[in-house]
Amino acid sequence: MEKSKIQIFDTTLRDGEQVPGCKLNKEQKLRLARTLEELGVDVIEAGFPISSPGDFDAVSAISAAAGDVTICALSRSVERDIDAAAGAIKKARKPRIHTGIGTSDSHIKYKFNTTREAVLERAVAAVKYAKRYVEDVEFYAEDAGRTDNEYLARVCEAVIKAGATVLNIPDTTGYCLPSEYGAKIKYLVDHVRGVENVTISTHCHNDLGLATANSIEGVINGARQIECTINGLGERAGNTSLEECVMVIRQHPYLGFDTGINTRLLNPVSRLVSEEMGMPVQPNKAIVGSNAFAHSSGIHQDGVIKKRETYEIIDPMEVGVDKSSIILTARSGRAALAYRLKELGHQITKLELDALYDRFLEIADIQKEVIDDDLQRLIESKEAVIAAFTDKN
Amino acid sequence: MEKSKIQIFDTTLRDGEQVPGCKLNKEQKLRLARTLEELGVDVIEAGFPISSPGDFDAVSAISAAAGDVTICALSRSVERDIDAAAGAIKKARKPRIHTGIGTSDSHIKYKFNTTREAVLERAVAAVKYAKRYVEDVEFYAEDAGRTDNEYLARVCEAVIKAGATVLNIPDTTGYCLPSEYGAKIKYLVDHVRGVENVTISTHCHNDLGLATANSIEGVINGARQIECTINGLGERAGNTSLEECVMVIRQHPYLGFDTGINTRLLNPVSRLVSEEMGMPVQPNKAIVGSNAFAHSSGIHQDGVIKKRETYEIIDPMEVGVDKSSIILTARSGRAALAYRLKELGHQITKLELDALYDRFLEIADIQKEVIDDDLQRLIESKEAVIAAFTDKN
Repeated sequence: MEKSKIQIFDTTLRDGEQVPGCKLNKEQKLRLARTLEELGVDVIEAGFPISSPGDFDAVSAISAAAGDVTICALSRSVERDIDAAAGAIKKARKPRIHTGIGTSDSHIKYKFNTTREAVLERAVAAVKYAKRYVEDVEFYAEDAGRTDNEYLARVCEAVIKAGATVLNIPDTTGYCLPSEYGAKIKYLVDHVRGVENVTISTHCHNDLGLATANSIEGVINGARQIECTINGLGERAGNTSLEECVMVIRQHPYLGFDTGINTRLLNPVSRLVSEEMGMPVQPNKAIVGSNAFAHSSGIHQDGVIKKRETYEIIDPMEVGVDKSSIILTARSGRAALAYRLKELGHQITKLELDALYDRFLEIADIQKEVIDDDLQRLIESKEAVIAAFTDKN
Repeated sequence: MEKSKIQIFDTTLRDGEQVPGCKLNKEQKLRLARTLEELGVDVIEAGFPISSPGDFDAVSAISAAAGDVTICALSRSVERDIDAAAGAIKKARKPRIHTGIGTSDSHIKYKFNTTREAVLERAVAAVKYAKRYVEDVEFYAEDAGRTDNEYLARVCEAVIKAGATVLNIPDTTGYCLPSEYGAKIKYLVDHVRGVENVTISTHCHNDLGLATANSIEGVINGARQIECTINGLGERAGNTSLEECVMVIRQHPYLGFDTGINTRLLNPVSRLVSEEMGMPVQPNKAIVGSNAFAHSSGIHQDGVIKKRETYEIIDPMEVGVDKSSIILTARSGRAALAYRLKELGHQITKLELDALYDRFLEIADIQKEVIDDDLQRLIESKEAVIAAFTDKN
């Protein structure tokens, strides 16, 4: 089966960088852009040039340095925003302007105090204006997640006619259920004239923890670009995690999709972004958390020691982690203890193991983790332990 | 519409506590169990009593102290495990034994080196054995996510006949897509005789970031219990986040579900668990991350200032957060600057704002965040700034 390529649109440097505490200077943005290109993303959203002179400079520098990757700059449906975006990406080999406007009734009424028709006109005007600068224009229908489908389809059709090449359908507030978001994308595929000539893009926020599921459901229903960030950084609870989407696609080959991402760089790039932005990744973060491949319960350790795939669907090497780890705690069983002792060079009998395991549990009930030094001391006192164990039984 | 109550089965003290670094002593487990009861969970999985003497004691203490909440203890399909579980929960008003066995071909072959029929027999024997101790017996079909549906249905039917009251269908490796997991639950609802007399439970791991979506899809298809943990703690990339599931259900009332959770405690309980277990919550974690209700881009801030619901679907108060925050960075606009200056007691004109905004951006391009002290200095130098601005324009 020929696989459909899903474009990975990384917005770490825009939606991620606008997060409290994540601001980067020009050199940092430039360094991360190079890393993202190495990782294999298709589009880098480099910034929002109108927002500040510093950001304009950073986007310009990234554009000048970029190779074959598309460099995208954000703008509102406002001429001076689009002018700034166009100015900043001028030197990119593949420039893209990202422009758009809120289309939900909530945005139309409370943010713009206007009407659906007026918003539609502004959308078309913005796309036409952006087309004066570049061929590749992406349109975002902000708060599409809460936008009436029939009106959303009308807006999409109008901006396609105006020249948009990509339609971004953001779940701006992170509100949609996967089934709802998937149905919205399907509605557009079925009802928008000309949709077959453009790329539909997902842009899902994680306010309810559903961003990855929504993005994947979007792709299953016809989207061919995912907007996402390293470590799921972004406004509020963040944007969609690049690493999660890429690995969902990789782990479900029968869906028929693929990306251009070099997955072995996922963990190193995650660490780099975390350090540069000063944003910690929690240990239980999927794919890139420090515990993502750590096993500690006895039941799981026993299974993994017998055959890795019993509990692990992803080979850690595939995402740039050296190996899965077997960590010894009070929830570990005999199999894990014997495994670790063997790794340390100690072959022991079953009787010895039983004896040592009791003593191991006493230590483990006090400590969070039993490390190799503890095991070494345990082994050194082996004879005493075994004597006591034999007495007891 | 009468809403169906979804049971919240919290396994922070079992699946969460077995995580590297998360081990708790008896007093800590007892304190957290009280907190979970206050939060309104229906079931507390208190531990795995056979795993260590310390854990047996902790489960016993929690059982003795518990009020109206069900206290559950884990066991494998092994008599001495079940004996230990029963012993530890003896004093609970509502005791439940959780027992089970791996049912996927991978587990049957590589972990147990046995046959489907033999596993089915062990499952039935374990449930019958547990029923000698308690009425409420939950059965887990480990790795159900990768178990053949027809065989899984046979196992479920057999354990219901043996007396199981709850069927736990774990996606142990975190592999399923929401549509796949939902279809599995639906298959069981449609094919297992007697299923109408028991509760189907979800237990989803987060290896691909899909645990919340899978749990919700399970509920939509007939499950009535969600197994989850505070902050999504658990083996590897963790278990399902309690706070995410509860708020998805709360935010989509038309699904017709409800839980007994006091959502205003979600943030305080999250912080307590994070501190006691020494497990940080990343700032961009849904519902309980420190940035979950922080707005920093100009576009978003402007919207939130006009009307909160433009960008925020959850009222922060509802989940125990004082208020959403407007944080000033280089991506903030004039509206946010004026809003904060007003909060600080400074009413300024539009011309003054334009002048101050330019100077504000200069500061913001250097600093990650512009704090109130910076604004105070900015205001104090207002006249100089405005004079310079007027010259420039």
